[in-house]
Amino acid sequence: MQNQNENENITVRDVIQIDNELLQNISSLIEDEANQAIKTIFTNLHPADIAEIINHLPFDDAQYAFGLLDTETAVEVVTELDEELREKVLNELDKEKITDIVDELDTDDATDIVSDLPDEVAEHVLDNIDPEDSEDVKELMKYPEESAGGLMNSDFISVDINALVKDAIEAVRIGSLEEKIEDIYTIYILADDETLLGFVHLKELIINPPETPLKNIMEEDLIYVTADMDQEEVANIMDKYDLISIPVVDENKKMLGRITIDDVVDVIQEEAAEDLQKVAGLSEDEEYSYSTIRISRNRLPWLFVSLGGELISAGVLSSFQASIEQIIIASFFIPIVMALGGSAGSQAAIVTVQGMSGANIWWHDVVKRLMKEFRVATLNGFVASIVLLLASKLFFSAELDFGLILSLSLFIIIVNATMIGAIVPVIFKKLGVDPAIATGPIVSSANDIMGLLIYLSLVTIFFTV
Amino acid sequence: MQNQNENENITVRDVIQIDNELLQNISSLIEDEANQAIKTIFTNLHPADIAEIINHLPFDDAQYAFGLLDTETAVEVVTELDEELREKVLNELDKEKITDIVDELDTDDATDIVSDLPDEVAEHVLDNIDPEDSEDVKELMKYPEESAGGLMNSDFISVDINALVKDAIEAVRIGSLEEKIEDIYTIYILADDETLLGFVHLKELIINPPETPLKNIMEEDLIYVTADMDQEEVANIMDKYDLISIPVVDENKKMLGRITIDDVVDVIQEEAAEDLQKVAGLSEDEEYSYSTIRISRNRLPWLFVSLGGELISAGVLSSFQASIEQIIIASFFIPIVMALGGSAGSQAAIVTVQGMSGANIWWHDVVKRLMKEFRVATLNGFVASIVLLLASKLFFSAELDFGLILSLSLFIIIVNATMIGAIVPVIFKKLGVDPAIATGPIVSSANDIMGLLIYLSLVTIFFTV
Repeated sequence: MQNQNENENITVRDVIQIDNELLQNISSLIEDEANQAIKTIFTNLHPADIAEIINHLPFDDAQYAFGLLDTETAVEVVTELDEELREKVLNELDKEKITDIVDELDTDDATDIVSDLPDEVAEHVLDNIDPEDSEDVKELMKYPEESAGGLMNSDFISVDINALVKDAIEAVRIGSLEEKIEDIYTIYILADDETLLGFVHLKELIINPPETPLKNIMEEDLIYVTADMDQEEVANIMDKYDLISIPVVDENKKMLGRITIDDVVDVIQEEAAEDLQKVAGLSEDEEYSYSTIRISRNRLPWLFVSLGGELISAGVLSSFQASIEQIIIASFFIPIVMALGGSAGSQAAIVTVQGMSGANIWWHDVVKRLMKEFRVATLNGFVASIVLLLASKLFFSAELDFGLILSLSLFIIIVNATMIGAIVPVIFKKLGVDPAIATGPIVSSANDIMGLLIYLSLVTIFFTV
Repeated sequence: MQNQNENENITVRDVIQIDNELLQNISSLIEDEANQAIKTIFTNLHPADIAEIINHLPFDDAQYAFGLLDTETAVEVVTELDEELREKVLNELDKEKITDIVDELDTDDATDIVSDLPDEVAEHVLDNIDPEDSEDVKELMKYPEESAGGLMNSDFISVDINALVKDAIEAVRIGSLEEKIEDIYTIYILADDETLLGFVHLKELIINPPETPLKNIMEEDLIYVTADMDQEEVANIMDKYDLISIPVVDENKKMLGRITIDDVVDVIQEEAAEDLQKVAGLSEDEEYSYSTIRISRNRLPWLFVSLGGELISAGVLSSFQASIEQIIIASFFIPIVMALGGSAGSQAAIVTVQGMSGANIWWHDVVKRLMKEFRVATLNGFVASIVLLLASKLFFSAELDFGLILSLSLFIIIVNATMIGAIVPVIFKKLGVDPAIATGPIVSSANDIMGLLIYLSLVTIFFTV
């Protein structure tokens, strides 16, 4: 049935490996202004790969390479560029070219880009793109970037409640060919006042006869979000219900737009990255392309929180100066009580933060969770204390009574730090503060201070009267 | 055109809020064995919501509630249960009911569940489900759980290279209605030997005339993965190219299955959670439902790494006993040099880990990145040192010469810890170890030890001769 010869010119492409060699080749081609060669390379690449290359070029080369793209490719590439680079590249581009690019973008991407343009350029762009798109973009710009409204795209396929399958097919044809709507998976069914009533999957248009009323086959069990919902919650809902697109409505259930899964995947990646950054004490997302000063400014605040916290620790130590002078061995174990309190606290904090990652706090879970944390802390504190007791005897020839007080301190410190690690994220969440912050420098400094207080108080009480 | 009265029975459902009240209601209904009432509640819920409720019930109640579901709903719910709970619930279910459930599952989900069953039950299930599915599941079980093969589903729609649009429509109809294939977005076009040649999007079947040869409209610029690829890499590729499904092939490009975005979203969530856990020093994913002993076992290894590392710190301190006795003020600042080295190191480590999150290391980026980290470290080290110099004078009335040595130490420690934080993840990645581990207890212990050595050496050299 099949003629192998016919297929000889069909190529199946491996995912491209963008390596340093390719990057250096392109850099030297740029230096030689070998535009035709660069264009030829780009022609064979996926826009996402071109973007990855441009993201890794020095700024001048990136600018030059982007300038070589035809509008159609530039449209695909510009959405994949690192945000800071994109802003810089577009700043150097003339208004007309920016207008051409924005005119071809989906409304959600167009909105992201127009919002970052200088006012005067943005105005020019909005005055010169397709008037309907321009209206949509102006509408979308009203929503905060991190809300459902900020994520949504106003291009979608909809038909009214009395339509037949064949009407929906016609709507898909027009949407796809004339309005160039991409990522069509679902046809939304609206009332006359644009209230969302239901939807059908694209495949239903294929498996049902053309004369079937959509009313008879539509899914009415709709999951939707409102435009003001936080993007993280949108991501949770799409993940939970395994959706590839979700409609966005206003307070009257009027359909405003839809969010597709690719944008939500980016949100999930971003939020995960942010969580990690908070744990490590970075104020905001840090891009490779930032200047030294900007990176420094991003990291210094938390270093100062650390420094402030530990100056208090130093104050605690100095107020126990007499005890330390009397029992110098006590000072050797300061790193141990600090580090183990810190580790136990951040273990509990991370588990709690992840446990609460859904939308709501489960109060009866919280109580059970804290009780479990307490049992775990008691067990781990006990095991670690016994080991420390043996180690202090073995490696530091500590007296048994000192070793016992040291172990007792470690036990109390581990239990205390674990409970703080488990409770603070819950309190933060309740107060509307991101719980991931509880795993960062503030809580670990607090645990250091409390750990030292517990340890040195016990040592002082038992050994220096 | 539209008659409002017709729509009165059309309901649009809000995303349900599962709260403690609902949960407690269900618990007491279970206690009263009010099966009909529970079934009525479940009928109105999305399977993902039923799963969320069951996930939060005590085990006996969860078991009971799951038992009330009809097979069709059980199939939808079982894939959303927490893994440990699912294993326990299925263990209590009789073989026949498990067989009924597995028979209705997609092959990827069926594989996950059958792999967790006791051998004897698994064998029974595989002997009694649809023979074709059984073959597929046995095939899929050969792949590691965290590979593309482990993620893929062997149900997909394909036609041969000489097919027309109408043949593809027929294939979608059969696949959808008879084989119950879900999530149909793409029709794959295969050669006679099942080699993957191209694909068309579902919408192309709608907008092109039925007699169009698929050859003329198919996309040949294919992005695919091989069955042995790690799931994290699969996720990166689908994210980068904004794909909602990706074909999986063997070494001869024979099509084996496809991976859909919903499974990849789960992978991304999992991997992000794992990164956070590694940073905090947890050995593996920790579920709320684990026993105290199991949680304790999960956390103790890293507590011991911390303890081991800090015993070395204690050793360093004890070997500088003479210096500390002479200048007791030196001991007060131990927490500061430890904590700031730790913070600066983990900031650099997180940024490096995130910067390398793509598939390949960019060596010329690495060098530039390290140079930038060095500049940032120098700047932040300088600023922090000046502040510490002032603070030591102001709050601790330290002598100027001690303050200067303290500041110098802090500067060196911050630069050193930053560079270690930036270099170790790169080395780990090169060695095939997950770089996120570099942000955890091993590296922070190492930084503590080095920090103390630097600080106490400088103090000893300058003040105790």
